[in-house]
Amino acid sequence: MNDTVKTIRDPIHGDIEFKGLFLDLLEAPELQRLHNIKQLGFAHLVFPGGHHTRLEHSFGAYYMAQQAAEHLKLDSEEKEIISCAAILHDIGHGPFSHTLESILRDTLNVDHVDLTEKLILGEHAIFDHLEKEFIDHLTVFDVLNKHGIHHKEIAEIIKGTSSSKKYLAQLLDSAIDVDQLDYLARDAYYTGVAYGMIDYNRFIQTLTISDDNLAVEKKGIGVIENILMARTLMYSSVYFHKTVRIAELMLSKAIELVENSDPFELFKLTDGEMINELKKMGELQRETATRLKYRKLYKKAYSPSISDLDRSQVQFVKKLDDVNFRRKKEIEFEQKLKIPEGKIIIDVPQTELQLSEPRIGQTEIKIVDGINPHTFDEYTPVGTAVRSKNIPDWIVMIITDEKYREEVYKKCREDTL
Amino acid sequence: MNDTVKTIRDPIHGDIEFKGLFLDLLEAPELQRLHNIKQLGFAHLVFPGGHHTRLEHSFGAYYMAQQAAEHLKLDSEEKEIISCAAILHDIGHGPFSHTLESILRDTLNVDHVDLTEKLILGEHAIFDHLEKEFIDHLTVFDVLNKHGIHHKEIAEIIKGTSSSKKYLAQLLDSAIDVDQLDYLARDAYYTGVAYGMIDYNRFIQTLTISDDNLAVEKKGIGVIENILMARTLMYSSVYFHKTVRIAELMLSKAIELVENSDPFELFKLTDGEMINELKKMGELQRETATRLKYRKLYKKAYSPSISDLDRSQVQFVKKLDDVNFRRKKEIEFEQKLKIPEGKIIIDVPQTELQLSEPRIGQTEIKIVDGINPHTFDEYTPVGTAVRSKNIPDWIVMIITDEKYREEVYKKCREDTL
Amino acid sequence: MNDTVKTIRDPIHGDIEFKGLFLDLLEAPELQRLHNIKQLGFAHLVFPGGHHTRLEHSFGAYYMAQQAAEHLKLDSEEKEIISCAAILHDIGHGPFSHTLESILRDTLNVDHVDLTEKLILGEHAIFDHLEKEFIDHLTVFDVLNKHGIHHKEIAEIIKGTSSSKKYLAQLLDSAIDVDQLDYLARDAYYTGVAYGMIDYNRFIQTLTISDDNLAVEKKGIGVIENILMARTLMYSSVYFHKTVRIAELMLSKAIELVENSDPFELFKLTDGEMINELKKMGELQRETATRLKYRKLYKKAYSPSISDLDRSQVQFVKKLDDVNFRRKKEIEFEQKLKIPEGKIIIDVPQTELQLSEPRIGQTEIKIVDGINPHTFDEYTPVGTAVRSKNIPDWIVMIITDEKYREEVYKKCREDTL
Amino acid sequence: MNDTVKTIRDPIHGDIEFKGLFLDLLEAPELQRLHNIKQLGFAHLVFPGGHHTRLEHSFGAYYMAQQAAEHLKLDSEEKEIISCAAILHDIGHGPFSHTLESILRDTLNVDHVDLTEKLILGEHAIFDHLEKEFIDHLTVFDVLNKHGIHHKEIAEIIKGTSSSKKYLAQLLDSAIDVDQLDYLARDAYYTGVAYGMIDYNRFIQTLTISDDNLAVEKKGIGVIENILMARTLMYSSVYFHKTVRIAELMLSKAIELVENSDPFELFKLTDGEMINELKKMGELQRETATRLKYRKLYKKAYSPSISDLDRSQVQFVKKLDDVNFRRKKEIEFEQKLKIPEGKIIIDVPQTELQLSEPRIGQTEIKIVDGINPHTFDEYTPVGTAVRSKNIPDWIVMIITDEKYREEVYKKCREDTL
Repeated sequence: MNDTVKTIRDPIHGDIEFKGLFLDLLEAPELQRLHNIKQLGFAHLVFPGGHHTRLEHSFGAYYMAQQAAEHLKLDSEEKEIISCAAILHDIGHGPFSHTLESILRDTLNVDHVDLTEKLILGEHAIFDHLEKEFIDHLTVFDVLNKHGIHHKEIAEIIKGTSSSKKYLAQLLDSAIDVDQLDYLARDAYYTGVAYGMIDYNRFIQTLTISDDNLAVEKKGIGVIENILMARTLMYSSVYFHKTVRIAELMLSKAIELVENSDPFELFKLTDGEMINELKKMGELQRETATRLKYRKLYKKAYSPSISDLDRSQVQFVKKLDDVNFRRKKEIEFEQKLKIPEGKIIIDVPQTELQLSEPRIGQTEIKIVDGINPHTFDEYTPVGTAVRSKNIPDWIVMIITDEKYREEVYKKCREDTL
Repeated sequence: MNDTVKTIRDPIHGDIEFKGLFLDLLEAPELQRLHNIKQLGFAHLVFPGGHHTRLEHSFGAYYMAQQAAEHLKLDSEEKEIISCAAILHDIGHGPFSHTLESILRDTLNVDHVDLTEKLILGEHAIFDHLEKEFIDHLTVFDVLNKHGIHHKEIAEIIKGTSSSKKYLAQLLDSAIDVDQLDYLARDAYYTGVAYGMIDYNRFIQTLTISDDNLAVEKKGIGVIENILMARTLMYSSVYFHKTVRIAELMLSKAIELVENSDPFELFKLTDGEMINELKKMGELQRETATRLKYRKLYKKAYSPSISDLDRSQVQFVKKLDDVNFRRKKEIEFEQKLKIPEGKIIIDVPQTELQLSEPRIGQTEIKIVDGINPHTFDEYTPVGTAVRSKNIPDWIVMIITDEKYREEVYKKCREDTL
Repeated sequence: MNDTVKTIRDPIHGDIEFKGLFLDLLEAPELQRLHNIKQLGFAHLVFPGGHHTRLEHSFGAYYMAQQAAEHLKLDSEEKEIISCAAILHDIGHGPFSHTLESILRDTLNVDHVDLTEKLILGEHAIFDHLEKEFIDHLTVFDVLNKHGIHHKEIAEIIKGTSSSKKYLAQLLDSAIDVDQLDYLARDAYYTGVAYGMIDYNRFIQTLTISDDNLAVEKKGIGVIENILMARTLMYSSVYFHKTVRIAELMLSKAIELVENSDPFELFKLTDGEMINELKKMGELQRETATRLKYRKLYKKAYSPSISDLDRSQVQFVKKLDDVNFRRKKEIEFEQKLKIPEGKIIIDVPQTELQLSEPRIGQTEIKIVDGINPHTFDEYTPVGTAVRSKNIPDWIVMIITDEKYREEVYKKCREDTL
Repeated sequence: MNDTVKTIRDPIHGDIEFKGLFLDLLEAPELQRLHNIKQLGFAHLVFPGGHHTRLEHSFGAYYMAQQAAEHLKLDSEEKEIISCAAILHDIGHGPFSHTLESILRDTLNVDHVDLTEKLILGEHAIFDHLEKEFIDHLTVFDVLNKHGIHHKEIAEIIKGTSSSKKYLAQLLDSAIDVDQLDYLARDAYYTGVAYGMIDYNRFIQTLTISDDNLAVEKKGIGVIENILMARTLMYSSVYFHKTVRIAELMLSKAIELVENSDPFELFKLTDGEMINELKKMGELQRETATRLKYRKLYKKAYSPSISDLDRSQVQFVKKLDDVNFRRKKEIEFEQKLKIPEGKIIIDVPQTELQLSEPRIGQTEIKIVDGINPHTFDEYTPVGTAVRSKNIPDWIVMIITDEKYREEVYKKCREDTL
């Protein structure tokens, strides 16, 4: 038996140790590929420190899962399973993390969690055939086999479909999971936006299990209030920062307009490969790649506040939630103004937010105080406040190439919108 | 006159402000390109947090130059010039920063400072023709023109060839320059290796000018001791970490073996573009790109300590300093063992270290205490200690594909080496 | 003119500079005395790092007032005045900061702000006659005279009674003042409770003046949400931590029971002098001093939650807000149980909280967005949530010597309470 | 069996846990008294954040001893013993920590370690009889009895006189002990002087045991270099800061001149009690207490650099190392100038430094690399540099009341000195 221990230095958690199963997973190509996927998509265009990757976050989630497992006194098998699920939970992410998820969802009705599942179950391969000749590392599927880990169990925890031991899935995906804890702290550290500086050690000290569910002791209410607030603030100031969003919309639109592209093939790419492929896909795509490289982004042409809209306009905005309607309107707009295809993008972020991070509205947390469990809302109004806050602060935004900005703005003011 | 102020958040220095000239420089393609050049080449393969880029470091150097200029009460023109030189001092860096410098030096006898100069003087363009049609930002050369800045003066400060006002050039390149201060603090922050956590604010408070030269007040000796030590430790544990070095050597070798490549063209590329080009250059190059992506690196086959070598072997190692002799030996070795070309690399890091960072041996610092200036060495033995330390800790290392490791090792033991 | 600059190192803000007026203030006995007044009273009995003093906080408030003045582009006179008010705003604090304020209020109807005013106007002296022979530093009153500063103006800003330039007083005392910003960050740092880790630099960047009032730009809403939340959490977990509160109540009770004591004389003492005087005042006082030294505190005997109380009990608790009624009940209780005087203390913290920190309920913040100012509540539900939160989490608590705990508990259950 | 766990928040190490034996020790009066003993004596007069106490440091040393024990895989008994020794190692410290040690040494030839031993063995009591009636906590001696811990063994580890298991004593007192690690990091944190920001976690990861002695793996050399440098810098800039030293000399002198004082009785006092007792001891003592309160310190009158002295003067300075000769000279000086007793103090810090921190010259560290152990000096010149550095930077300093400064200076220039 190999008892090598490898230590990796993490600026957030200090030294993180890997051995046995985890040392093998560390070398698997699915994990190593994450070295090349930025955690925050294009956030570095606004926060230049935000170049950190999904790999570091995966290590962080793995570390925190272990800490939580120890605090909760889980047995060694459960600890192995949750640590394994934590380190693998993001391997299905495509280039620039969440950026292209809407396309995947619209065309194939799957998301990165589904891809993660397929990779774990061995139903997909991350390699392309040209790479395979050089790399003989075991894949995640092979490693799990080697160590006798039940693939399905790991996948079920990640998908949250496991029927027993709900607390295991909740450790990875719930209002109080370690995934969020790590990314909030990590994103705050790398971007320099202090909101996410939460007390994750204290958080873990207050976790408990109640009736097969993950819960929090009463003394942890303050920590949770702090975390919910941090999450809200990071969403409005970093994740849905207007300029970050514009860069993401530009890439999405460029990909959307490529005919016959196989979303699965795109999803295997790294950030650098994606930008390179883009250049070969067509004129708009080449332009988009160049613009992203030099940060020459589209600009906001129009973004009314809700109080500026009358009832029929609000109705219209609601209809824009539908992706097909939205695309139809974009094209109509472009044709009316004789602007080339792909140069006008309508953003209705609320829907996307809900889909990309369903936890944002989650504040249903079980509080254990004495015998009877209570809900978080019984103790504090902070959950309600967080749920009723608007993130981001625009309901609709129309963006375009700077040179069309004026005319798009005028048209928006004249027309329905 | 445009009085817009833009604020960029930096995790090291907090909010950094840009206006006028600097706002225009910020948008110049030469600066924006640095978004895509990692500060530490392949250090992220060992320290996963080390994905920060030359752009952030350029902002940091610019910020610290301003702080130093204020402390030294430089006039507004000098402050503008040194800030301008600081923000531009790294625009000539090629993909993965220092990684390919040795090739540039060996083939064309230039380095990234020469390229920086050419970009500032408008003698080179960072754009390729396909990009130009989409991007109409002013280049650095244009921006300097627009604001009436003397190109030559900026270039001379960066090259250290300016004959007057030596302190300006020394602020950017000397044993106590702001360039180092920023990169030590920044690299420590992102890699999580605490050695570089120096007190850069205190450092600036102790700077002074003596006889046209940058100097340090006596009270600053402790800070300088700390900085010299931090630099030494960051070199041995991060910049010349063995595994980081192996990745860099692999890329260098792959590029070196490409015939007819124009080093200038390569130097314009971003990290991602470099990896992509590599794939098209040949079999070894494609293999190297894939290995770097999945972190399947060559391994150390042989690395004798100096005490293991007899006099003739030491002579032999000394001769390896010559790049042509070294390459000849690599090929001989490969032929004897029937190993494909490019699979054996001999590393003699000391020379490279001296070339890539000549400041490493610099501890000549003027100390101002009362009337007469003294040298740093008169006060403390720390400078001597730092100069006499070995970084890195191997004098020669032979690396190869894991599958040849055993036979290369045996051959090395049998033969001269 | 003396142009000496003195630099003091602060772990929160880095180097803080003093010159001229401020160098003289720094040496004044009223400021130096604050070296001996702990910022957080007895919080160190729960958070052992919390030994920092009012002096450091005064420096911090002074530093932040300067930063704010620079950001707001106040003229040099206004900057001097606000910096002066900031450094002096806490000189009237008695031993252990807020601990004895309730006594001062109950007996003389004054608080530390009134004492601060008297010191600034020269109506009180901090020296005792035995000290005067050794110390010839100028007092604050003298220093203001020397530098031609209008005493009344400084006092009015601190008291918030100035009719013009409301923003100056608001910088020191409002929902968004620099006083709070400094103490939140500082208390978080020294106690290690991360909640207070707010982004005070960013906060200052968003301040503005609107119609003679301090206001915040729209982009600052997130920062304010963060600060309000931090304040709430620091109150519930540090400032009104149950054990900290018990220690404070013990000292208050011991002082309260001393006959003929002159509260002003007590207020001049340092923490160490207070404890020493206590030993000479009587048996209970000597016991209290010893208990505080060795952390042998009273214990909670009874603390019903509001849902345990019926309507008449709630009425009764309300009446306990009146200090005389409360004291009467304490004595009745002691007599019934034959427990010595001073051994039973009834705490009704809400009133005290309101008096000691009226800002806790303040979320009335002017937001500047375009032309019309708005209120903070128009943008976010966080203010409402913060206002409606309960701090601390008990409405009434009865504490006593551990040996009487059982019987007091039983009596409370039997009787009205 | 009581299985209560108490968690205490430490800003350096996060949550520190106490249970069983350690929970009882935590409540012992010897430990609780340390709440009132500042770690750095009078350093807060220069670094206002430096109010932290011996108690926090004791917790920190206890925490790090546990971490080291776990890393070294010590058995549970050894882990208990070293943790116990670590938490108790400083209980013998007198008021203001090291400040009065020289008096204790000169009059009784003992130091704080001897007092620590006596407290552990039950040969001394920290209580005074007036306190005893109120406090019934078990003393350290009682607690050790209760838990069956062998007193002598703990004392021997602290004194370093244990003959077997040398690594246990070395963990607490050697060139690489956890005591120093904690105080360097802690003092850096509270004073804001960044030099001490060492990587204590990494340090612990490199510890090993070789031949019954504590040693360091080769990979730890960089960490050790960093620690040795940090220690040197903290000594010269904080611990032996000139102004801090002056305050300490003033208190020492005031105590020295009290006749018939029992040093043991003085050593039991807390900082606050010491200052209060001082006021009752005489005129000079009352003056000293007042001066320390308001920071009106003596000033440096004369402090020649070694190059200013001729051979006979150097001889003279050497003789000043003898405390009796030094005191004789102080009195002669005072009499010649008709200055009251106690107003002239001669400082020869080097001797004191050697006595108060014998580890400062220690760089004998065993390095484990492969089979044969080596010394630290074989790998790096940093140890030699650290040993040959002068701390502090004066060899003799004469201080006095500001009003005598001029005449003392003149006399020093005229006379032998």
